[in-house]
Amino acid sequence: MNTRNLTLLTDLYELTMMQGYFETQENETVIFDVFFRNNPNNGGYSIMAGLDQVIDYIKNLNFSYEDVDYLRGLGIFSEDFLHYLSGFHFSGDIYAIPEGSVIFPKEPLLKIVAPIMEAQLVETAILNIINHQCLIATKASRVVYAAQGDGIMEFGLRRAQGPDAGLYGARAAMIGGCVGTSNVLAGQMFDVPVMGTHAHSWIMSFKDEYTAFKEYARLYPNACTLLVDTYDTLKSGVPNAIRVFTEMRDAGIHPKSYGIRLDSGDLAYLSKKARKMLDEAGFTDAVIAASNDLDEFLINDLKIQGAKIGSWGVGTNLITSKDCPSFGGVYKLSAIQNSDGEFIPKIKISENVEKITNPGDKTIYRVYDKETGKIRADLICFADETWNEEDELLLFDPNATWKKTRLPGGSYTMKEILLPIFKHGECIYESPSVMEIAQFCKKEKETLWDETKRLFNPHGVYVDLSRSLYDTKTRLLDEMSK
Amino acid sequence: MNTRNLTLLTDLYELTMMQGYFETQENETVIFDVFFRNNPNNGGYSIMAGLDQVIDYIKNLNFSYEDVDYLRGLGIFSEDFLHYLSGFHFSGDIYAIPEGSVIFPKEPLLKIVAPIMEAQLVETAILNIINHQCLIATKASRVVYAAQGDGIMEFGLRRAQGPDAGLYGARAAMIGGCVGTSNVLAGQMFDVPVMGTHAHSWIMSFKDEYTAFKEYARLYPNACTLLVDTYDTLKSGVPNAIRVFTEMRDAGIHPKSYGIRLDSGDLAYLSKKARKMLDEAGFTDAVIAASNDLDEFLINDLKIQGAKIGSWGVGTNLITSKDCPSFGGVYKLSAIQNSDGEFIPKIKISENVEKITNPGDKTIYRVYDKETGKIRADLICFADETWNEEDELLLFDPNATWKKTRLPGGSYTMKEILLPIFKHGECIYESPSVMEIAQFCKKEKETLWDETKRLFNPHGVYVDLSRSLYDTKTRLLDEMSK
Repeated sequence: MNTRNLTLLTDLYELTMMQGYFETQENETVIFDVFFRNNPNNGGYSIMAGLDQVIDYIKNLNFSYEDVDYLRGLGIFSEDFLHYLSGFHFSGDIYAIPEGSVIFPKEPLLKIVAPIMEAQLVETAILNIINHQCLIATKASRVVYAAQGDGIMEFGLRRAQGPDAGLYGARAAMIGGCVGTSNVLAGQMFDVPVMGTHAHSWIMSFKDEYTAFKEYARLYPNACTLLVDTYDTLKSGVPNAIRVFTEMRDAGIHPKSYGIRLDSGDLAYLSKKARKMLDEAGFTDAVIAASNDLDEFLINDLKIQGAKIGSWGVGTNLITSKDCPSFGGVYKLSAIQNSDGEFIPKIKISENVEKITNPGDKTIYRVYDKETGKIRADLICFADETWNEEDELLLFDPNATWKKTRLPGGSYTMKEILLPIFKHGECIYESPSVMEIAQFCKKEKETLWDETKRLFNPHGVYVDLSRSLYDTKTRLLDEMSK
Repeated sequence: MNTRNLTLLTDLYELTMMQGYFETQENETVIFDVFFRNNPNNGGYSIMAGLDQVIDYIKNLNFSYEDVDYLRGLGIFSEDFLHYLSGFHFSGDIYAIPEGSVIFPKEPLLKIVAPIMEAQLVETAILNIINHQCLIATKASRVVYAAQGDGIMEFGLRRAQGPDAGLYGARAAMIGGCVGTSNVLAGQMFDVPVMGTHAHSWIMSFKDEYTAFKEYARLYPNACTLLVDTYDTLKSGVPNAIRVFTEMRDAGIHPKSYGIRLDSGDLAYLSKKARKMLDEAGFTDAVIAASNDLDEFLINDLKIQGAKIGSWGVGTNLITSKDCPSFGGVYKLSAIQNSDGEFIPKIKISENVEKITNPGDKTIYRVYDKETGKIRADLICFADETWNEEDELLLFDPNATWKKTRLPGGSYTMKEILLPIFKHGECIYESPSVMEIAQFCKKEKETLWDETKRLFNPHGVYVDLSRSLYDTKTRLLDEMSK
């Protein structure tokens, strides 16, 4: 169902460069890293998401007859090259941090090890998928944090940037901690809970609000959330809802979940008034749900003002990550294999020190405090470096090397977090289900210090380089500047 | 190719409401309007886009066996209702403003006339598609305006919010006036020009920059744009490019189009320096292309500072409409047909006067100044009202009725802009090609006064109500307040 051939979902320059490599190079094996430079929304961490869609994309890579024909029509590709494309498949290795993991700037989220023609082709689609889903999972995680344990429902499909943004955005939102989505197709595709109530048009299609509520309660007695703001929230909506709840109670109907939804007006004021009215009528377990332009900051503020809201529907601001609608993931060459099979580190310099890449064939170890289980730092090192948890570990900031921390042997644990996904073009990784990933993500967030989870000005997590990687980087920079 | 069944791409509440209507109502024919309340980015106009995808969606609406089975599994739908769904098809009428049209807040972009169950189902997907494409077409139009005739290339796929956002975003960007996209699949699907050069990785994969340029020029002599900022733009990149262009000239090769691309650093400063170097070497026709976090405001500012850039690659900020990543299109009930076949106007009130809807079965006439061909106003009226261009036309602001304009008969022309697309479930409209729509959009923008096209604080276009519509709206509001 819904499988699409996304092979041409790439920038034209990937194909022109491929032809260039085809004509001029030996198609050496190279390494590209996917990494990002800053957490969105000035946050202290991000959430990894989208790997399962990258896996599907890589598995299904092939140029159909129509694709080759279309490319031929552009008049810039040789028949030899088009012939090569018609037999194309991905033959390389891919490593990745699993979905749901907490991730930090500058560390490789994915490492692609493949002949340069293949590694180049897949750049655009991999970035597209990873940038989108990491963005929305991270945003969702922030919104969930602000709600302090209340459920967040993802309601953004109508404002998402196209069907996929709604679908994969819902997937990412679930990974980030939402309890459900309004998006039925996402529910079907990813086996996640779908949720919803009714719209103003439901109320308007009946002769009056009371009748609309009564009919809704009759049809859905077990999930009976009534939208109370069509005419006048406190004068009409809440009283009519209470009337219907009272009739249900009198008839001996005790809904599993019931309540009201506020979708306009001042949510702090209205929720407190409505709570009082519901409580006075004996409906202390009725849930007040709210929607209308919510994000983590407004939820945070409403909480501070004592809003009596127990369930939040978040739409536009979550599904578009409105205040930061792109995740700046990039794809950079870090090494080229020589004829002896050795990976020669490559570096991209920049006037901006933050934009200088980390060279070589690398991996990442996550370093945890043994006592608390919290993350002390991520350590980027060469893939062949070995570590012993009984040794003292020296951590230092790669941009300010005088900032040093020494962890005594035995005080920390280490875990390699970049895992093999494809080996010689074969997928060797089985993705967990979305709800399993969401469960894992919840545990991952427990490894963060509270200071890192804060919405405003959080404490960043250290991402350090091994001594050996740092020295290589410094040497390459010195050579460049000559 | 790439056809997907998007029938379940809807909010769960559309389906629960449908079942509610199925159980409680006669499935009366109703009218829903799609409209938006504000132009994105505080602009003076927006661009209509996405209709062709809405048409595809409506044509392909059907619940597969798997869809019905999935819904059954949710445990909230009756077998009778599921049986109804399994035979579902859209049987209503749809009217729309054609793609590429300039559009303004509060006017119906689409009008859906259908039995309430059908009209309710299609809300979410229609909004998703229209909101996305109108947003990106509008943003593109602003960027194109800022470039004052230079070509804008859409380069955002890697930062788009998923594959569709890249694909349909590229489509919308072309409608808004871009000259091409880097997105190859968009090129294939929509028959639009694809463009691109090479990345830093191309340079880094050769032993030096000069060799990389030379090989690129050999392979693509007719579209030879060299990326000059991998190492040092002015000390290495531009001199190496000039060396290669000189060798081409000496060999008698005269490229159709050639030049350099700047992707970092200060684009005003670097482009002026590079222009001087190119001109001094005799390459006055070499084009300087630029990319790197561009949007309409930066392009505008670079133009003011005399940047010597003739071609602009715009990525993230265009494909996500970064400063305003959602288009606030809504879908509101405006009328219900009674048993006599008459449409009874319905209104949704709100404490916010801007949020009050326009009731009834409506259409839109665009009123042009006869002499200049520029738009004087859009006039929303009942669908059965008739107009005579020889009569005086009274225009008044529906929120400030004392603001009146009288257009003498013969001084204006009128055109109905809401056109029939579906009739009794059959599509009766043939969409133009994307490039035809782009052509049409260019002409549409000529009907705007310059004051409306300005990036900052533009003059809004009047969207007025007919006397009859205004009176009905006032009467309904009066009745409500009783």
